[in-house]
Amino acid sequence: MIRVVKIGGGIIDSEQQLDAVLDGIARSVDPVILVHGGGRLATDLAHRLGIDQTLIDGRRVTDLDTLRVVTMTYAGWINKTIVAKLQARGVHAIGLCGADNDIIRASMRPKVPIDYGYVGDIEKVNTQALTALQGTHSTLVLAPITHDGAGTLLNTNADTIAAEVALALTPDVELVYAFDHAGVLKDVNDPSSLIALIDRAASQRMAEAGEIHTGMLPKLHNAFRAAEGGVQRVRIARYDAVDTTDGTWVE
Amino acid sequence: MIRVVKIGGGIIDSEQQLDAVLDGIARSVDPVILVHGGGRLATDLAHRLGIDQTLIDGRRVTDLDTLRVVTMTYAGWINKTIVAKLQARGVHAIGLCGADNDIIRASMRPKVPIDYGYVGDIEKVNTQALTALQGTHSTLVLAPITHDGAGTLLNTNADTIAAEVALALTPDVELVYAFDHAGVLKDVNDPSSLIALIDRAASQRMAEAGEIHTGMLPKLHNAFRAAEGGVQRVRIARYDAVDTTDGTWVE
Repeated sequence: MIRVVKIGGGIIDSEQQLDAVLDGIARSVDPVILVHGGGRLATDLAHRLGIDQTLIDGRRVTDLDTLRVVTMTYAGWINKTIVAKLQARGVHAIGLCGADNDIIRASMRPKVPIDYGYVGDIEKVNTQALTALQGTHSTLVLAPITHDGAGTLLNTNADTIAAEVALALTPDVELVYAFDHAGVLKDVNDPSSLIALIDRAASQRMAEAGEIHTGMLPKLHNAFRAAEGGVQRVRIARYDAVDTTDGTWVE
Repeated sequence: MIRVVKIGGGIIDSEQQLDAVLDGIARSVDPVILVHGGGRLATDLAHRLGIDQTLIDGRRVTDLDTLRVVTMTYAGWINKTIVAKLQARGVHAIGLCGADNDIIRASMRPKVPIDYGYVGDIEKVNTQALTALQGTHSTLVLAPITHDGAGTLLNTNADTIAAEVALALTPDVELVYAFDHAGVLKDVNDPSSLIALIDRAASQRMAEAGEIHTGMLPKLHNAFRAAEGGVQRVRIARYDAVDTTDGTWVE
């Protein structure tokens, strides 16, 4: 069983939470592929460089300057910092982006109706290349940058990368979305309101009743897609539970 | 025969020169490990961020802010841009730094007599990890960032990395230092003054006679060390000659 773990910016921005995830990876008996997002660093760097950031529907428009910033921060500092921290835990780890060994090929999102710039939609995960790299007995650490095969890097959603990587490795794979709650909660302020098991129908009912935080919906969308596509286990769990069976199971 | 090619900032800053190097790698029958330096991007970024750069004897003092800048630019933007450009040429390439799979372990340079900050002196090249990664039939692209095994990244000289990697792969290896001249020239303005073959004794005589540009000396120092340590071929050559036998041969 391969365990694909996704961590977002909130975890990366908290040294304590990031350390807890990496400790869990060090404990994991199953080999891990860690997909990480960005966090404040890219936004801060763009701000300090005077690069205006445009958000449309909460998504970042990626012009060439912004592509440089996210590639530097995601595939450079964050990725290599995580690798060094894993090595310090005795975990053989290798930091990659989608361009490396052509692991993830994407195409630039169509400019109509909205031109998001250098944003990639995934076309193909190269299962053979991923498996060959795992053959070097490494934990793979994936930054959310892909390429188009013609020399252009592309900014790509990390939640989607995690789902597509897990789907490419079906069936013997687990997908874990790690964040700072115990799982999907009916009441975000009450950990005991954890939903142990959720499927698409239940999620829709709860969303209509306002019982799910809207910020959870894109993550759940990717989680359902993975579960329905044959990923054996899909879980939404807290940062300190990646190597357990805790959290919300997604069917 | 494995071909270790080192390119410096001058080549990286010139799209035409970088493309010529990558074309040569695409033509190379022998598998390639490309070690790259930095270039203007790191200095420019530090300047734009208001991070003062201190040079002592031409070497950059690397405080934590500067370590972030060089890791972002070297291991992030430059490394992944080169990988994407190689993939576009049909070359299976993977971008790494010394922390990845513990390829290059270093220790922070002693703070006495001069505190250079987060600068690493190489302790060990992990030949087994390098060979395993080459077993994935990839061109390895190495950024000049290493780690200490305890979670800290370190800025490390790319010329030295190239020599140490070649030495770790002896004897069946070639080391090529590529730059913007045809090789070691008696007269830097006259390409026909190329020295076809050089050894340490000849180099010392020429240096004393003022016949070698002082900027060549550190490169030659690493080249002699590699040749004397058993690297089968050591060459200093122009950026468009990495896959040839042109340039100055170092014995």
